[in-house]
Amino acid sequence: MIHVNTASKLSLHVENRVLIKNKNKKIISIVDTVSGIINENEIAVSNDIIENLKLKDKEIVEVEIIKSPHSINLIKKKLEGHRLKRSEIFEIIQNIANNSLTEVEIAFFVSAVYTRGMSLKEIKNLTDAMINVGNKINLGEKIYDKHSIGGVSGNRTTPIVVSICAVAGLKIPKTSSRAITSAAGTVDVIETIAKVDFSINEIKEIIKKTNACLVWGGVLGLSPTDDKIIKIEHIVNIDSPSQLVASILSKKISIGSKYLLIDIPYGNSAKVSKKEAEKLRKDFLNLAKKFNLKIEVVLTDGSEPIGNGIGPLLEMKDIIKVLTRNKPPKDLESRSLFLASKLLKLAGKKNPEKLATRILNSGLAYKKFQEIIKAQRGNINNLNKLKPKFSYNVKIKGKKRIKHIDNKLINKLARVAGCPEDKAAGVYIHKKKNELAINEQILTIYAVSKEKLDHAVKFYEENKGKIVEFY
Amino acid sequence: MIHVNTASKLSLHVENRVLIKNKNKKIISIVDTVSGIINENEIAVSNDIIENLKLKDKEIVEVEIIKSPHSINLIKKKLEGHRLKRSEIFEIIQNIANNSLTEVEIAFFVSAVYTRGMSLKEIKNLTDAMINVGNKINLGEKIYDKHSIGGVSGNRTTPIVVSICAVAGLKIPKTSSRAITSAAGTVDVIETIAKVDFSINEIKEIIKKTNACLVWGGVLGLSPTDDKIIKIEHIVNIDSPSQLVASILSKKISIGSKYLLIDIPYGNSAKVSKKEAEKLRKDFLNLAKKFNLKIEVVLTDGSEPIGNGIGPLLEMKDIIKVLTRNKPPKDLESRSLFLASKLLKLAGKKNPEKLATRILNSGLAYKKFQEIIKAQRGNINNLNKLKPKFSYNVKIKGKKRIKHIDNKLINKLARVAGCPEDKAAGVYIHKKKNELAINEQILTIYAVSKEKLDHAVKFYEENKGKIVEFY
Repeated sequence: MIHVNTASKLSLHVENRVLIKNKNKKIISIVDTVSGIINENEIAVSNDIIENLKLKDKEIVEVEIIKSPHSINLIKKKLEGHRLKRSEIFEIIQNIANNSLTEVEIAFFVSAVYTRGMSLKEIKNLTDAMINVGNKINLGEKIYDKHSIGGVSGNRTTPIVVSICAVAGLKIPKTSSRAITSAAGTVDVIETIAKVDFSINEIKEIIKKTNACLVWGGVLGLSPTDDKIIKIEHIVNIDSPSQLVASILSKKISIGSKYLLIDIPYGNSAKVSKKEAEKLRKDFLNLAKKFNLKIEVVLTDGSEPIGNGIGPLLEMKDIIKVLTRNKPPKDLESRSLFLASKLLKLAGKKNPEKLATRILNSGLAYKKFQEIIKAQRGNINNLNKLKPKFSYNVKIKGKKRIKHIDNKLINKLARVAGCPEDKAAGVYIHKKKNELAINEQILTIYAVSKEKLDHAVKFYEENKGKIVEFY
Repeated sequence: MIHVNTASKLSLHVENRVLIKNKNKKIISIVDTVSGIINENEIAVSNDIIENLKLKDKEIVEVEIIKSPHSINLIKKKLEGHRLKRSEIFEIIQNIANNSLTEVEIAFFVSAVYTRGMSLKEIKNLTDAMINVGNKINLGEKIYDKHSIGGVSGNRTTPIVVSICAVAGLKIPKTSSRAITSAAGTVDVIETIAKVDFSINEIKEIIKKTNACLVWGGVLGLSPTDDKIIKIEHIVNIDSPSQLVASILSKKISIGSKYLLIDIPYGNSAKVSKKEAEKLRKDFLNLAKKFNLKIEVVLTDGSEPIGNGIGPLLEMKDIIKVLTRNKPPKDLESRSLFLASKLLKLAGKKNPEKLATRILNSGLAYKKFQEIIKAQRGNINNLNKLKPKFSYNVKIKGKKRIKHIDNKLINKLARVAGCPEDKAAGVYIHKKKNELAINEQILTIYAVSKEKLDHAVKFYEENKGKIVEFY
């Protein structure tokens, strides 16, 4: 923000781009003009810029007018439906990484990739470009990893799979992202009881202790453009397949993963249809070959929510039920065992299904999970500190059998209630597909403010017949 | 902007949407959090909001959390390639009009319409939706109007056409917009010597005096969504055909135009190809029928810049040369006469070509232009007050004949030099297509700051062989 009079003197206009320099650090920013808050020849900057340039109050900086980056033309080119060259993709990704592109410009790039799609070659180049701008981490040999493309409510298998595999001796340092279109991501869930943002050295320490970790990938700078792009996709709840594949693989490669399990849930109300899932599988397999990764891609049924809790706190409770063998949601349990066995198989273990089940039943997986949480400065008991203040029971009159619960709408409901930012917010599903409800509650909606609860109840009422369908 | 602590208390997060209320006025805004500039329980708002809510310093307002508008789902629907229903288009346009959508969300809508296109039915509905949210103005019967879809550098025929037609007795109240992708729009050019933003009553007064006007349409609120959409399109220099047709027709209908001339320049380096121009013509003709407009659509050669000056001040100088019959650029003159005669023909005038030429040669058109400028509180002599401080001559060594000057790149060059915001900035073309240059200058670049001139010169050097091509 610059004073209107100063702007006028410099012939600077709103939305012009400037380079702000402090010593040898520099950042690009977009001009806004004000009159009042600041004096002439002063500028006010965002916290982001303060941190980046390590600015102090009243510090003197250089401000230089710069022209729009050339990558805007490349974004236009993609919007027009043309293929982008390797150098062009690198230029766009570099510009996103160094803040040369505004959110509106990134939205155009995201739309272009989403609507026009990308060739395998473009996706390969996008992956390389993302690796190129990010940090690389060496965590040693034989790194295992899993990833689900998400979209299925409550499908929080990762903490269970990681715990089982770590017990079996696999080194599985799991970095996750925050929720994109769902009510919670693995990181949002882990954060209910432990820290998720660690330095590279801290992560190495956690892995040394436990063979695993459950941390936020964003802070590692593996793919600095990724969070920016996901934040923008988030706004309209889209998830571009090309961007998805490049984003996942770039982060796995940067963290040195060599053995990778990809889970693609598909079906009615999942993120992708069976056909799209098969296309994605093909893209993953083809690209993994180019990058020399040992990969297994599984397609799983994603048409109904998994588990009972939807939202960070509620999902963590489901995970603990599975790990402690205390009334576990059966679907979450079997899905976790299936995925764990696939990873164990990739590691050459014999009878992987039996091994996974034995580790879970023995309580060793829960012990491992507690170790990881402790190493991440957390504690299972932190769960009790989180309390949703407001709740609403959705009850059924008469006798009805549930035919379908819509992932997208139940996610939306949880998001309207405050997920993923409000950790204790969410939806508890009492009755699932094919279960019978007789004059009883089928859902409970939780929120941390009365207003958000009201919005969620209103959203439920408006979408009543679609969120939960009956026979 | 709200203090982080207050935000935390209200469980408000960055990018949450709030409704700010002051008495019976309300506006939707997006939350950003700060610590420092403001105290807890205080908010800071943009000038836009201050004006909209008529706020005073320290005024107490109500802030309410609201959920994302439903139209985000509709934008997603369009991004996915589906057709939008009438009610859905109305909802999006209403949300843009009442500030419920952010710039990023509008960018997604713009991209969706651009990449997926719109059916004739969708364009009709978009036009209706734009008319619906805008003001309607009654300027009486038999209103004539012209519009060029633009994209051709220096093609500033409007002031000349309007002056000629007004002399011939046509009532032609011309409202224009600012530059979208070019170096200057008609409004940017008129603004070099006169005011362009008037109230409806003031415009009626100007028309009463002169039969015409050359004003900015934005201030009339004919299509309040239009400027917002154009501002976003501007960022990546795209111009969606569906949006273009709806935007033009909605404004013409709202201002009560009944006789309409549309000029579509096409060709190499113009905004559209001949094929696209023909598609646009069809859309215009079909839609005009639905709205009961008498319309004439002409396709003109748009492959080379028109006139010599590119940029607000330089284009105004060309216009005055044509009107005063003082070394007029021949192409600007003949193009203006052609368009004027088409409008005169639409008005039923006999020998329209001869009539247009006679009016121009007689000096009556210039007299009329001066009347309009005077009525718009301007003065031709204001031109001399604008001076570009910096200039750079592009010279040719040896003997070269010009083959092509690229509209898009010459526009870009003028924009890098500061157009359209810096009125005196721009490019003067000394030599045009098929002209011979012998050790002399072919272009002069003008700018109001040294930095912008440097950027423009750098841009010229980088695109040397493409801006001006030689045989």
